[in-house]
Amino acid sequence: MAKEITSRSDDYSQWYIDLVKKADLAENSDVRGCMVIKPYGYSIWEKMQQALDKMFKETGHVNAYFPLFVPKSMFEAEEKNAEGFAKECAIVTHYRLKTDPNNKGKLIVDPDAKLEEELVVRPTSEAIIWSSYKKWIQSYRDLPILINQWANVVRWEMRTRLFLRTAEFLWQEGHTAHSTADEAVKETVQMLNVYAEFAETFMALPVIKGIKSEGERFPGAIDTYCIEAMMQDGKALQAGTSHFLGQNFAKAFDVKFATKEGTLEHVWGTSWGVSTRLMGALIMAHSDDEGLVLPPKLAPIHVVIVPIFRNEAELATISEKIEPVMAALRKAGYSIKFDTRDTHKPGFKFAEYELKGVPVRIAIGPRDLESGTVEVARRDTKEKKIYQLAAIVEEIPALLDSIQENIYQKALKFKHDATSVVDSYAEFKTILDGKGGFILAHWDGTPETEEAIKNETKATIRCIPLDAKEEAGTCIYSGKPSIRRVVFARAY
Amino acid sequence: MAKEITSRSDDYSQWYIDLVKKADLAENSDVRGCMVIKPYGYSIWEKMQQALDKMFKETGHVNAYFPLFVPKSMFEAEEKNAEGFAKECAIVTHYRLKTDPNNKGKLIVDPDAKLEEELVVRPTSEAIIWSSYKKWIQSYRDLPILINQWANVVRWEMRTRLFLRTAEFLWQEGHTAHSTADEAVKETVQMLNVYAEFAETFMALPVIKGIKSEGERFPGAIDTYCIEAMMQDGKALQAGTSHFLGQNFAKAFDVKFATKEGTLEHVWGTSWGVSTRLMGALIMAHSDDEGLVLPPKLAPIHVVIVPIFRNEAELATISEKIEPVMAALRKAGYSIKFDTRDTHKPGFKFAEYELKGVPVRIAIGPRDLESGTVEVARRDTKEKKIYQLAAIVEEIPALLDSIQENIYQKALKFKHDATSVVDSYAEFKTILDGKGGFILAHWDGTPETEEAIKNETKATIRCIPLDAKEEAGTCIYSGKPSIRRVVFARAY
Repeated sequence: MAKEITSRSDDYSQWYIDLVKKADLAENSDVRGCMVIKPYGYSIWEKMQQALDKMFKETGHVNAYFPLFVPKSMFEAEEKNAEGFAKECAIVTHYRLKTDPNNKGKLIVDPDAKLEEELVVRPTSEAIIWSSYKKWIQSYRDLPILINQWANVVRWEMRTRLFLRTAEFLWQEGHTAHSTADEAVKETVQMLNVYAEFAETFMALPVIKGIKSEGERFPGAIDTYCIEAMMQDGKALQAGTSHFLGQNFAKAFDVKFATKEGTLEHVWGTSWGVSTRLMGALIMAHSDDEGLVLPPKLAPIHVVIVPIFRNEAELATISEKIEPVMAALRKAGYSIKFDTRDTHKPGFKFAEYELKGVPVRIAIGPRDLESGTVEVARRDTKEKKIYQLAAIVEEIPALLDSIQENIYQKALKFKHDATSVVDSYAEFKTILDGKGGFILAHWDGTPETEEAIKNETKATIRCIPLDAKEEAGTCIYSGKPSIRRVVFARAY
Repeated sequence: MAKEITSRSDDYSQWYIDLVKKADLAENSDVRGCMVIKPYGYSIWEKMQQALDKMFKETGHVNAYFPLFVPKSMFEAEEKNAEGFAKECAIVTHYRLKTDPNNKGKLIVDPDAKLEEELVVRPTSEAIIWSSYKKWIQSYRDLPILINQWANVVRWEMRTRLFLRTAEFLWQEGHTAHSTADEAVKETVQMLNVYAEFAETFMALPVIKGIKSEGERFPGAIDTYCIEAMMQDGKALQAGTSHFLGQNFAKAFDVKFATKEGTLEHVWGTSWGVSTRLMGALIMAHSDDEGLVLPPKLAPIHVVIVPIFRNEAELATISEKIEPVMAALRKAGYSIKFDTRDTHKPGFKFAEYELKGVPVRIAIGPRDLESGTVEVARRDTKEKKIYQLAAIVEEIPALLDSIQENIYQKALKFKHDATSVVDSYAEFKTILDGKGGFILAHWDGTPETEEAIKNETKATIRCIPLDAKEEAGTCIYSGKPSIRRVVFARAY
């Protein structure tokens, strides 16, 4: 089973696709560009959702739900936003099908059911949400509004790849409204930090926090903050964005509030989102040629127990010994699977759970019972160790913590090793075509240089890191002066 | 604030709309027929989701996600299903907007971006899901498949009403596949029972479980099971449905499996769903002229504490006394709000929390502190009682349980009183135009009679109750023989 995965060194892209499919995470549907998220993949996404939702609520946000459709006139209100998404919008034009008079049993779009105004399937919800905020906000007492929405969105992508880029995807989008620019900027940064903390703590994924250049900014934003992660093939992946919208949407939708002083001002906004793309990041960052490697905090199954038995009686003896252990671990909040199938051999099961990334595997056979021991294998290092059965309940939590930490440290070291500081364009290109990774280099700050480098090398400015120190230098491309290094990379 | 709600006796429909809006549950959006679910309304829906999701998982189901769009050719594969939904489908025909050459800053649908095949925005997902099941199912070892999906769906309704009937709504839809008819029927009934248990235990809403007549059946199903609830105005509300699909979708999508015996057979299916319509049922079943009455198990806030103070010092003294109480209740899993706003008077707050249906309100002032007591008001009966402050932590859980039970018993009595047994068409019409409610009457079993009664009285057969006893009688309309009574009502 696991043998059918292409190795990373042979073809990283194919390895990823194989993995997503063989591990039963997702598959392409018969609808162009749309995926089916299968139960195992969805259960990882649910874990992400739960963790993020808790973090959003702890920072004072509440959930709500706004319409899927955006009338075209509303969609075009914020011009830059509209322009940015116009080329990839699914458009609803009719509201009825009718029987095809020429083809029994077939349906055609009813031309009499044409909408007066076309509806855009939301590619993002700023427009529809700010049209509501206009009704909700009159005075400073109505602010701030701190709302999040879990939803599906549609962006008509021409080249799609499971989780990383699909026409429809699932995400959350926060949309907040504030009385001052300062408060909105603080919110933007706060949510960036929430994303970074989630990536590092739950996904075991270290990230660079930064600000996008103008060319990579969200259409309609004043500033786009982002977290950028490094994949094993040396390509970067944008894992989350948080936008300071200034008063752009408030102006487009005429959303004003009466200040304490009695003046009337436009409201300040933010928006921020992460999507099922995080699934792609999670898979690509940690997994290996045998399959998924999941950080325990996002693993649907923490421990799988594989009994080794020749007959029903042996299985019964093993079950009797292991059941109190499972009960104790479940009570402590761990998800335990006991795979008693007699249709598959232990070796097959081992490969299957390696493929699925279950962090800990316990094998227990008749000889183990005699010695009061079990064999414990950890997925991340593939290390096997004999544990006392009596100590399992106590030791598993620490083992899972250690796996979580090890996966993070490995990714942290990888990110460190994949980061280069470069001072010439020649070296820049050599590294890009070699190991890739994050390249810290001086840039003159112009869109022209950014565009030229992108066209020549396919590398983009991932961000201007928040922790970048002022450092005088010269742009690797134009030779013009620069005051800090930015992060370049080829990216997903 | 609460005073602005129309009373139920004046205009029940307007009372409902007022309540939904004033209690900040939902509002109409600028998109025809689509609502905005506001944070307070959404938090009740989240509680419903959590409870249902847990029940689905406990009965062996897993969540997954399938595409929003259904290609027209796939949509029309199951003819009855397609015919049933064709008249209310939103259709995507284009995938791009472009700048209007005649109108700067405006966008038009790009005629060059017409889809080869139109996409239907899912009104329900049988078609798209069975097209996946075809790929997933080869042998009996692949069965059963027990999948649920939380999603938005679109049905282009001409007359909409917040929560009860909207063009887009949120729901869950279970879609299962089985190797035998018997197993599929058992699943259908199991999920009906899950819905009934959820309605009664969480929503405090007693229901009738039954089977729909042919005329009210889900398009594409062999049998539709349902739960029917009674609202305060004597109208019924269908609160959930569970469909035995037979082999209809398996045949439409050519989904066959190899049996243990080596033959090839079509798969048996079920589907079942509840939606944000349940919000409407919850509101209409229990609330009164002062506002919402929420069963504690679905209340976002269980207890609100309103301090009565003239200055900061008094508030500080009250806070000091009440904080350990709040901490203890929160630790026990209750959601507690302490409303310390000095911008609103206690009376205003009392009315506000009555409007929002918070089950328990505690008022505490300086005199209470002296006597070591607090005033506790329950929302359901509006009864007020003095409690010892020291006993609050112990007594609140029992009080909330008693409120949950009382709301249920009240609804149960209402349903009982609203149920009539009728033996003549004259009496049938008199009761319908009087108190309404559920009417148990004999029906000859023909669609013609059902249709005639519907046309003449607007009453429909809500269901043939599962617990209906065989009882010889004559149809109230045709006088033909009947073997059991069915449930008629006017319905939402």
